[in-house]
Amino acid sequence: MFSSLGRPRWGRLGSAVPRAWPPGPAAGRFGGAPLGGAPLGGAGSGLTRALTYGPSPGGAGVRGGARRAPWLVAGLAAGLAGVAAASLQHLAQAEMVPRIEGTSGVPDRADELALRCKAFMAQPVTALAELRARRGDVKTQMELLIMETQAQVCQALAQLDRGASFSVDRWERKEGGGGISCVLQDGHVFEKAGVSVSVVHGTLSEEAVKQMRSRGKVFKTKNGQLAFCAMGVSSVIHPKNPHAPTFHFNYRYFEIEEADGNKQWWFGGGCDLTPTYLNQEDAVHFHKTLKDACDQHDPSLYPKFKKWCDDYFVIKHRGERRGIGGIFFDDLDSPSKEDVFHFVQSCARAVVPSYIPLVKKHCNDPFTSQEKQWQQLRRGRYVEFNLLYDRGTKFGLFTPGSRIESILMSLPLTARWEYMHAPSKNSKEAEILEVLHHPKDWVH
Amino acid sequence: MFSSLGRPRWGRLGSAVPRAWPPGPAAGRFGGAPLGGAPLGGAGSGLTRALTYGPSPGGAGVRGGARRAPWLVAGLAAGLAGVAAASLQHLAQAEMVPRIEGTSGVPDRADELALRCKAFMAQPVTALAELRARRGDVKTQMELLIMETQAQVCQALAQLDRGASFSVDRWERKEGGGGISCVLQDGHVFEKAGVSVSVVHGTLSEEAVKQMRSRGKVFKTKNGQLAFCAMGVSSVIHPKNPHAPTFHFNYRYFEIEEADGNKQWWFGGGCDLTPTYLNQEDAVHFHKTLKDACDQHDPSLYPKFKKWCDDYFVIKHRGERRGIGGIFFDDLDSPSKEDVFHFVQSCARAVVPSYIPLVKKHCNDPFTSQEKQWQQLRRGRYVEFNLLYDRGTKFGLFTPGSRIESILMSLPLTARWEYMHAPSKNSKEAEILEVLHHPKDWVH
Repeated sequence: MFSSLGRPRWGRLGSAVPRAWPPGPAAGRFGGAPLGGAPLGGAGSGLTRALTYGPSPGGAGVRGGARRAPWLVAGLAAGLAGVAAASLQHLAQAEMVPRIEGTSGVPDRADELALRCKAFMAQPVTALAELRARRGDVKTQMELLIMETQAQVCQALAQLDRGASFSVDRWERKEGGGGISCVLQDGHVFEKAGVSVSVVHGTLSEEAVKQMRSRGKVFKTKNGQLAFCAMGVSSVIHPKNPHAPTFHFNYRYFEIEEADGNKQWWFGGGCDLTPTYLNQEDAVHFHKTLKDACDQHDPSLYPKFKKWCDDYFVIKHRGERRGIGGIFFDDLDSPSKEDVFHFVQSCARAVVPSYIPLVKKHCNDPFTSQEKQWQQLRRGRYVEFNLLYDRGTKFGLFTPGSRIESILMSLPLTARWEYMHAPSKNSKEAEILEVLHHPKDWVH
Repeated sequence: MFSSLGRPRWGRLGSAVPRAWPPGPAAGRFGGAPLGGAPLGGAGSGLTRALTYGPSPGGAGVRGGARRAPWLVAGLAAGLAGVAAASLQHLAQAEMVPRIEGTSGVPDRADELALRCKAFMAQPVTALAELRARRGDVKTQMELLIMETQAQVCQALAQLDRGASFSVDRWERKEGGGGISCVLQDGHVFEKAGVSVSVVHGTLSEEAVKQMRSRGKVFKTKNGQLAFCAMGVSSVIHPKNPHAPTFHFNYRYFEIEEADGNKQWWFGGGCDLTPTYLNQEDAVHFHKTLKDACDQHDPSLYPKFKKWCDDYFVIKHRGERRGIGGIFFDDLDSPSKEDVFHFVQSCARAVVPSYIPLVKKHCNDPFTSQEKQWQQLRRGRYVEFNLLYDRGTKFGLFTPGSRIESILMSLPLTARWEYMHAPSKNSKEAEILEVLHHPKDWVH
């Protein structure tokens, strides 16, 4: 599909990269650009944990788990059976994961969109009628992509961690839009794994506009306000076994409507791996999968976004990266909306194959208490990055009325800080630290 | 001594309080004022973990623990015996805690200053000769007070947690000054307890000057530079038992010399208690001890600084305080340098009696795994406050070359984050949350 894309077209992206990267000390500020590498869910303000949404023409609406919709394909249902049962713990505020069984509200099988939605963890944030009306829009395609990605990742997690507690919370944003947060906590394989979708819209305040401008974007506002739409999927997955790496991904789309009706749009996202111990084979597999996804569109993308990732996920006060990187990009607004969407789609579809095999491979590895302790110390570093540097986390937390639980689901279940901890020379702990200090090229 | 102080004189302090309090979202910025409620040690940049300092005329210098100075009074020696032994783990970079035994380097008993220094965890940062030369200065008195406070607290901790690992690290700041960090980790009573002293001086960059100005202070600079001196003692103590509260204190002094030679000075500090479970009796004892210390100087101080504390230690995104408060103040520059010093001295001397009895009382309380888990969740909140809001922590971390280990010694050994955790109604967990949402008056 992208075979026609010449380097020069994608090459223009390069100019966007260095604008604010690597972020200086100012990146730690609330005033930083919104929604860096963290949960988009945080951007939503005025949270209400809504129990209801209008039943769509194509499928039965579920209400606090009281009804079970019959619109889940069999393959997914198998993996998520335990999920649906476990989500009962959030009966009061959660929407049940739909299951295949039941007979009410059978969708119109002619409606392709409704059929596609059956595989999701919940109905999309935007009503099906609206999505159907603007079926050709990239905005619609992106909402379906993030819902699909959420479902695919949740399915893969549930298949690995059968019987684990997995909750699905749907929330609404007073000012417009909402989200769906899926969290598996204290399972057999995963310590904590959250996959969150949000689709929010409304107007941006003058303060938020200023934040946009600090990234070098200039918009024509009306009374200091801009109409906007932002959507994304974000996830952090912490397995229990110290030999299975932690993983993060986030793909997002922004649209701004200026005072004169002109629309500006851009995509952002990426994914990165944070192993407790270095496994060369895993690192190569992870990066190779990302490179393959990027290379479908342009061979210049992976090296550029790999470096951007190394530059972004830095725990500055420690002088180390939080992991072995991956890809990261922001402000992607060329060559065309469709082109970039398809690139993001390739990245999103690489999420499961890049990561899940690594957990499958290591989730039953034997480990020592010392290895578990080192994992806990690395969890502490993860917390430091997320709370001190991650622009999305900070933007979310400092936005009044944001959904704190969706933002901080990225934090590990447990973490540790030891004073003056230093691994001994030539140890496995020192080996990973070396890579965190000096990022490597894994695929050339 | 302060009986002659009328309310009007101290009343002037009130005008300083509301300047930047309660801090708005901007308080989360790097650009905020330096050294809020956290370790002053962080302000030092260009750290070298120095092993040596010049032997003072009054006492034998120790060097990497290779020699043991005989200049510790007997009472302290008893409490710190285990401390000295355990500090061997930092032989390479640490200074030994001096002990009573040994015969070399007997100080001149006529030298009162040297005698006083014998009780400290290490020699003061400033050379004894210099301290002796400006013996009458408040700056000298403050350095002795922070050293004395560090020693008293460490002694009290060591007495409670015999045999625990306690390390003493001395560090130097390339640009001037240095500090001494004492940390007890993974003991029987304490999970982690750090008491750090720092005395730093040099010139302030234009950026730092700007930070000063953002607090409403205007200074006459020379080429954008100002000579400054900052010193303080800071501490965070996390006991293991969930019924023994976490405690923080920090007392600090700043001096700025303007281009025309004019000197400006101010004090800051405070202390606050963070219980996992509410114990009314403990809360009253803690606040009553602080009130008594304040009341020696002026009855208006405690209510004012208690409110300031409640307003400062807020985890804004959670809408809750991190604990049950205490006192907090900053920019204290009236009625006179001596008056404020004596007030700070009273506060510093209230540290041990306000807190240590609470740990003694509860360190052997029986507890359930559920109570331990709730403590770990509260530890998570502590991390959130320190990394997201504490101005001192942020200022320290974002100052290039600062001593990260001294700043982050405030973090607990272990912490926990659960998605959507909510205590059940009328539980003991809900009881403390209620107080964190609605601070109480504990002494009237």
